[in-house]
Amino acid sequence: MNDEHYIRQALTLARRGLGKASPNPMVGAVIVRNGEIIGRGYHRRCGGNHAEIEAIHDAGEDINGATLYVTLEPCCHHGKKTPPCLDTLLKHELGRVVIGTPDPNPQVSGRSIEVLRERGIPTEVGVLSDECRRLNEVYFKYIRTRTPFITLKFAQTLDGKIATFTGDSRWISSEPSLKFAHRLRSHHDAVLVGVGTVLKDDPELTVRLTRGRNPLRIVVDSSLRVPLGSRILKAQEAARTIVATTLKADSERHINLTQMGIETLTVDRDSDGKVDINDMLKKLGEMNISSVLVEGGAAISTSLVSQGLWDRLVVIIAPKILGEGMDSIGNLRIKAIENALKLHFVKTYRSGEDLIIEATPERP
Amino acid sequence: MNDEHYIRQALTLARRGLGKASPNPMVGAVIVRNGEIIGRGYHRRCGGNHAEIEAIHDAGEDINGATLYVTLEPCCHHGKKTPPCLDTLLKHELGRVVIGTPDPNPQVSGRSIEVLRERGIPTEVGVLSDECRRLNEVYFKYIRTRTPFITLKFAQTLDGKIATFTGDSRWISSEPSLKFAHRLRSHHDAVLVGVGTVLKDDPELTVRLTRGRNPLRIVVDSSLRVPLGSRILKAQEAARTIVATTLKADSERHINLTQMGIETLTVDRDSDGKVDINDMLKKLGEMNISSVLVEGGAAISTSLVSQGLWDRLVVIIAPKILGEGMDSIGNLRIKAIENALKLHFVKTYRSGEDLIIEATPERP
Repeated sequence: MNDEHYIRQALTLARRGLGKASPNPMVGAVIVRNGEIIGRGYHRRCGGNHAEIEAIHDAGEDINGATLYVTLEPCCHHGKKTPPCLDTLLKHELGRVVIGTPDPNPQVSGRSIEVLRERGIPTEVGVLSDECRRLNEVYFKYIRTRTPFITLKFAQTLDGKIATFTGDSRWISSEPSLKFAHRLRSHHDAVLVGVGTVLKDDPELTVRLTRGRNPLRIVVDSSLRVPLGSRILKAQEAARTIVATTLKADSERHINLTQMGIETLTVDRDSDGKVDINDMLKKLGEMNISSVLVEGGAAISTSLVSQGLWDRLVVIIAPKILGEGMDSIGNLRIKAIENALKLHFVKTYRSGEDLIIEATPERP
Repeated sequence: MNDEHYIRQALTLARRGLGKASPNPMVGAVIVRNGEIIGRGYHRRCGGNHAEIEAIHDAGEDINGATLYVTLEPCCHHGKKTPPCLDTLLKHELGRVVIGTPDPNPQVSGRSIEVLRERGIPTEVGVLSDECRRLNEVYFKYIRTRTPFITLKFAQTLDGKIATFTGDSRWISSEPSLKFAHRLRSHHDAVLVGVGTVLKDDPELTVRLTRGRNPLRIVVDSSLRVPLGSRILKAQEAARTIVATTLKADSERHINLTQMGIETLTVDRDSDGKVDINDMLKKLGEMNISSVLVEGGAAISTSLVSQGLWDRLVVIIAPKILGEGMDSIGNLRIKAIENALKLHFVKTYRSGEDLIIEATPERP
């Protein structure tokens, strides 16, 4: 068995941390001696043991002469909750280390690799590195920019409509896709909607149709129009809510929300006097929110798309045609096809009768 | 090897007739003796030998005791160009016959099966029958209704736009999808556009980017607005053009077209005074046109969709977003999601950077 084989095993382990490790990266590790896997581990949850440590425990601490396969470069800095993995590794006499990809965290960024090599441990780097990076696209974006990874999700008909011209939108997609949407929520730190969606649909934005943790709920609401009886303001013990607003909002409404235990986040205003999305994302990043799922409506989606502030698009396409209706994306002032926003279709898959397309922006 | 195996071989042969056998069905046949295929055949082109006869020739006429596998029930009627296959089969001493699916042609429709059994030849019917029917969905529709099978094709952005709001539409899709569109043309008896598309894009509607026969070209043009210099009226020796019009069209323009050697087809007017699509399709069916590829524009697509006059939808989705622009499907007056037109996604596949979705109407 070659190195790729064991890194693939480590990747499979790493994925088990999906929706739990965040804002830490998902990491998996296997320890191999004489062609036999003697230890397996992954990062189960933020604050828990790192993957390497789990694998060493699993091997019964006896790893002398063995090879450690790990999807991401081991850390060499003291985390808030855990000591550096590098120190632990150096206490053992590892025969070799194979690393999927270096850690982009400026506090690590190749330093652990250097130390391992200085100590004479043969260390390979860059095995299945694309897969290892893709697994942690959220972490890679967040650790580099300190702003959250943005997933934009909507359900539309084949002809690109998210509602009829009278506004009816329930339900465009099928039951399996609603479940999929809840699962997607549980994989993000936060879920975000514009206040228009709250006024129109009064969504709960919790994870109900599948198991998984509730993300933080964010309402973008420049002038605090969110009704105090909205579902999104309820059940704060199960899922926190933050209302992102501006200084132009009425202070009494501000006080009402605070008294209800709802956090507000005051951000800069853009040229239209609305919540400045860039400033909001920066502030959410400062709050350790590494990923945000944007669930509409069209105004927020259009704003994010036109400013290029998204990292992944998830479009659920229902096998329906509506004709005239509400567009999934509003006016972008594009006059020529050559100026259309270009994407890259990464994945397509079926979900019940629907089709799901995942896309990324086409980076030049 | 079982019966399914050999019918599958026959299906593979049958598909070679795509774009050539029409308006006849695609049919494939294999002849097997002692587990060995001794003859193969398919229907190469309308007017040529039927698949069974080709297979018998291929076997060197010696098929006594063998099993004939054929995707469609052999014919028992005199065609315009060929004698009944049943007569030829009965001249040999076949051991057994296995048939994919009965022929829906009212002149056959199980009669050959009856005769084979009466003559004591063990005859199985219904092996891979779904595949055998699907292969000839065009023929099955046409032979039952005598109106052509309608494929509706358009290229749109992910958000359902076929042009910018200023009308720019070239090109939404990628080079491989343009090739695919030409191949699709060559598989249909006719290609159809509204006169609006001729006025706007002046398309040629021939098969150029791939090999294949040129389909008949049809322009729907209620009042004969088609410019006499249009590309679609040229090169009649390579591809014929028919202009479907109504009695309200100017007779002088009618004469102009006739003098140019362009055929016109006068059809009934609908309640808006335009070409009545139903009547047009009936008349095209009478002209032995078994399949029509509709290439737009949105007015024709919308009309066909709203009247349920389509059999297959082929949507090329480009990885682009346009925002406000021209909708692929126009106003259908649908107010509630539950009244949306329901489809069934049959197939999805990549074409260069694009995604292609094939859909059928959801039949109740």
